[in-house]
Amino acid sequence: MSEWTHFDDHGRPRMVDVTDKPVTHRVARAQARVRMSAETKRLIDSGAVGKGDVFAVAQLAGIMAAKRTADLIPLCHPLPLTGVQVECEWENQALDAVAVLRITATVRTASQTGVEMEALTACSIAALTVYDMCKALDKGMVVEDVRLLYKAGGRSGEFHAEPEAR
Amino acid sequence: MSEWTHFDDHGRPRMVDVTDKPVTHRVARAQARVRMSAETKRLIDSGAVGKGDVFAVAQLAGIMAAKRTADLIPLCHPLPLTGVQVECEWENQALDAVAVLRITATVRTASQTGVEMEALTACSIAALTVYDMCKALDKGMVVEDVRLLYKAGGRSGEFHAEPEAR
Amino acid sequence: MSEWTHFDDHGRPRMVDVTDKPVTHRVARAQARVRMSAETKRLIDSGAVGKGDVFAVAQLAGIMAAKRTADLIPLCHPLPLTGVQVECEWENQALDAVAVLRITATVRTASQTGVEMEALTACSIAALTVYDMCKALDKGMVVEDVRLLYKAGGRSGEFHAEPEAR
Amino acid sequence: MSEWTHFDDHGRPRMVDVTDKPVTHRVARAQARVRMSAETKRLIDSGAVGKGDVFAVAQLAGIMAAKRTADLIPLCHPLPLTGVQVECEWENQALDAVAVLRITATVRTASQTGVEMEALTACSIAALTVYDMCKALDKGMVVEDVRLLYKAGGRSGEFHAEPEAR
Amino acid sequence: MSEWTHFDDHGRPRMVDVTDKPVTHRVARAQARVRMSAETKRLIDSGAVGKGDVFAVAQLAGIMAAKRTADLIPLCHPLPLTGVQVECEWENQALDAVAVLRITATVRTASQTGVEMEALTACSIAALTVYDMCKALDKGMVVEDVRLLYKAGGRSGEFHAEPEAR
Amino acid sequence: MSEWTHFDDHGRPRMVDVTDKPVTHRVARAQARVRMSAETKRLIDSGAVGKGDVFAVAQLAGIMAAKRTADLIPLCHPLPLTGVQVECEWENQALDAVAVLRITATVRTASQTGVEMEALTACSIAALTVYDMCKALDKGMVVEDVRLLYKAGGRSGEFHAEPEAR
Repeated sequence: MSEWTHFDDHGRPRMVDVTDKPVTHRVARAQARVRMSAETKRLIDSGAVGKGDVFAVAQLAGIMAAKRTADLIPLCHPLPLTGVQVECEWENQALDAVAVLRITATVRTASQTGVEMEALTACSIAALTVYDMCKALDKGMVVEDVRLLYKAGGRSGEFHAEPEAR
Repeated sequence: MSEWTHFDDHGRPRMVDVTDKPVTHRVARAQARVRMSAETKRLIDSGAVGKGDVFAVAQLAGIMAAKRTADLIPLCHPLPLTGVQVECEWENQALDAVAVLRITATVRTASQTGVEMEALTACSIAALTVYDMCKALDKGMVVEDVRLLYKAGGRSGEFHAEPEAR
Repeated sequence: MSEWTHFDDHGRPRMVDVTDKPVTHRVARAQARVRMSAETKRLIDSGAVGKGDVFAVAQLAGIMAAKRTADLIPLCHPLPLTGVQVECEWENQALDAVAVLRITATVRTASQTGVEMEALTACSIAALTVYDMCKALDKGMVVEDVRLLYKAGGRSGEFHAEPEAR
Repeated sequence: MSEWTHFDDHGRPRMVDVTDKPVTHRVARAQARVRMSAETKRLIDSGAVGKGDVFAVAQLAGIMAAKRTADLIPLCHPLPLTGVQVECEWENQALDAVAVLRITATVRTASQTGVEMEALTACSIAALTVYDMCKALDKGMVVEDVRLLYKAGGRSGEFHAEPEAR
Repeated sequence: MSEWTHFDDHGRPRMVDVTDKPVTHRVARAQARVRMSAETKRLIDSGAVGKGDVFAVAQLAGIMAAKRTADLIPLCHPLPLTGVQVECEWENQALDAVAVLRITATVRTASQTGVEMEALTACSIAALTVYDMCKALDKGMVVEDVRLLYKAGGRSGEFHAEPEAR
Repeated sequence: MSEWTHFDDHGRPRMVDVTDKPVTHRVARAQARVRMSAETKRLIDSGAVGKGDVFAVAQLAGIMAAKRTADLIPLCHPLPLTGVQVECEWENQALDAVAVLRITATVRTASQTGVEMEALTACSIAALTVYDMCKALDKGMVVEDVRLLYKAGGRSGEFHAEPEAR
């Protein structure tokens, strides 16, 4: 089955050969959301103003993780990333007791293969960094909706995530 | 505010001093779920039998990521992990069109601080590895419900996640 | 002596300057062999069928090690690898009591310098991973015949290993 | 089969749980040999006297690789190494046309599990570093006889390699 | 000469054997200073208030670098750090045209050997991170006075740096 | 303020997007100086002749650190370095009691952004490696004058450090 590009004919893992693919500009954007209590959000916000900035630590962790993707995801190609941006913003919530932080990562390269995994890794590690910094307050935080939002460049064309059902 | 153990008095990040805490046995268990189409599940299952084993690659990636946690999460202490286990199993689903893979990681150490972040990192990277291996088939896969299930050891006592609302 | 490209005029190590060399497609293939008792082979084979797959773990370790080569071999250039494949197969043996596993790695890039070291590192680490997984059974396993089989691309032309004397 | 400590009951890889094992002093010694032409040996020797010291680079690479073992061998525990020594010496050879460099690594720790893999990794990477530095002269060099020579500490007692058959 | 603990009897590098040394609490404090134009200081200060926080990025980079010390300094032992704190503060200067940022790092462990190199590495990388973030404005910035300020724990007793001559 | 390329509009860190910049040859040269007692210099020199070569270890550490720059400096782009050279030489000193070692690093690439940080990182880690190897003799050693000497390639043109005031 040709879709199983990550396995050879014996069903064993391989890093796909992209040597002959053209170098093109690539971009991918992904997100993760961190669901927490409104009380935890309040503490993060108060910290961000006068004191420690949880978002700055999380964004930096996400940027650095993007650069480590090929070390973490076994069959990913090592890519010379040309730009990484990670952003944090609070979502509006219907429920007063719950707060949701949306983390978005945008990664760029000029290469033979895409940067979806780099964007997803950046989001995921940024989200876990928020968890780490707040876990003394709230161990029940949940990372959810880690997904690819957009990609462009390369033969398979653009991808836009469908609007979320939630 | 003393809860902000990860920031100093100027609001800048620090790695908390645990030098004087006793070394105790620690365990943490966390999960991630990967939601995908039933068709993608069918392809993974067929691969697992006769050919490539997506789960083996994902579990290995999770184990290796647990060892890299202190490199990824900026304020985590480097810990001498004494055991890591990552498991994959399909959940039963009410909807025929959707499949959910549950990834569980259990991490152990004898140290002055806990291994929650190691367990969460193992799950997250294992889930992203599943995404990577299947993304040519299904870019709409979502990683969700990344959460701590259980921890024990250390002064703060045991933690059991509340039963999921979903 | 101009051959000592890895040392400067004071005899101190340097990473050779390849800035002005043209980017060309490069491939290298290397091997390692793991000699073990027939009993250990039998256990690996039985595991590979119904249970754990030693080869899959070893191949994955080899692929990931190829990506770490420039971190390990001090004077290697960091290269954007475009393909890595690691394969395991049993050799036929004249002696009943001995089994030999042959591990072959093929690495590709488009770069200014070759990937011999990446292929050799992939083989070596895959072989050590087999040792690690079986060492509780057989500490006398030996890794042997780690050698370059083939390279192409670059000014020095193709290299084919001579047929083995053994 | 209880020997398959690196696989769980579903045959999937795990890092063995050693949390309850006592911390004891551990030592392991391993070797690798690099077979090359007498001409290459002559060039290394001349370099070692007046100019670049191939052995110093190889030994340093081996020491640094020992520290990276848990990053490379997927199921290895991360261990706080307390001593690493790598040595290079020429073997006497019956054949004039061939030279053999023997690389020996000794690794120590106080931990719950042994350092065999660290010693084997140190030797292997030191040997590949020799290959790297001399490959412009001699691509036919072979790394052979990578094996554990000795281990002590831990429940399984001492291990001494059998005298080599060669 | 017995002081050359980092070399063996053949003058080749080794990682000193500390297996038999007692585990004790260790602390080390080091500094680096970054000399820059008063204009660059003004821009950093304005950023720190309303926008980007150069110090937070530098401190985080320093903390993460402390954890990577054994990967960077070839003969350093890998140590389970139990606390890292990096601080930035402006020094008062006699000259109006020059500004000096003092970066201080304090590192702790319970181990068989000290953490001087971890503290020095944290300072140095934090200082280079300041350089990186401001280099578009001022390429003439200089990192100076990287030195150990204090250490305690271990057989060699306490060390206090002499008051600076400058 | 457009100079703050490392921060986005919310003042949070980002890796600057260089995707659209042309790939050009880049070179950067930087230095660090290590000030020590004349006695420590004498011991290094005696070692360098008959026994251990402190400079070779330091230069190797510097080369390897250049390759790790993007892992250490949070907002640095990962670059495919094409050449790294690190050199050590004693400066002439007016004062008999003090010796100064000057470490120079030259780094090259063909990329969209420069290698200043790689050259500065190489120097700094090489200098800290000298500190590490000699710290049993002289804990008062100081790393000073870490600065960019020269860069070329890229839109901002050449940079030559001003002659030192000291």
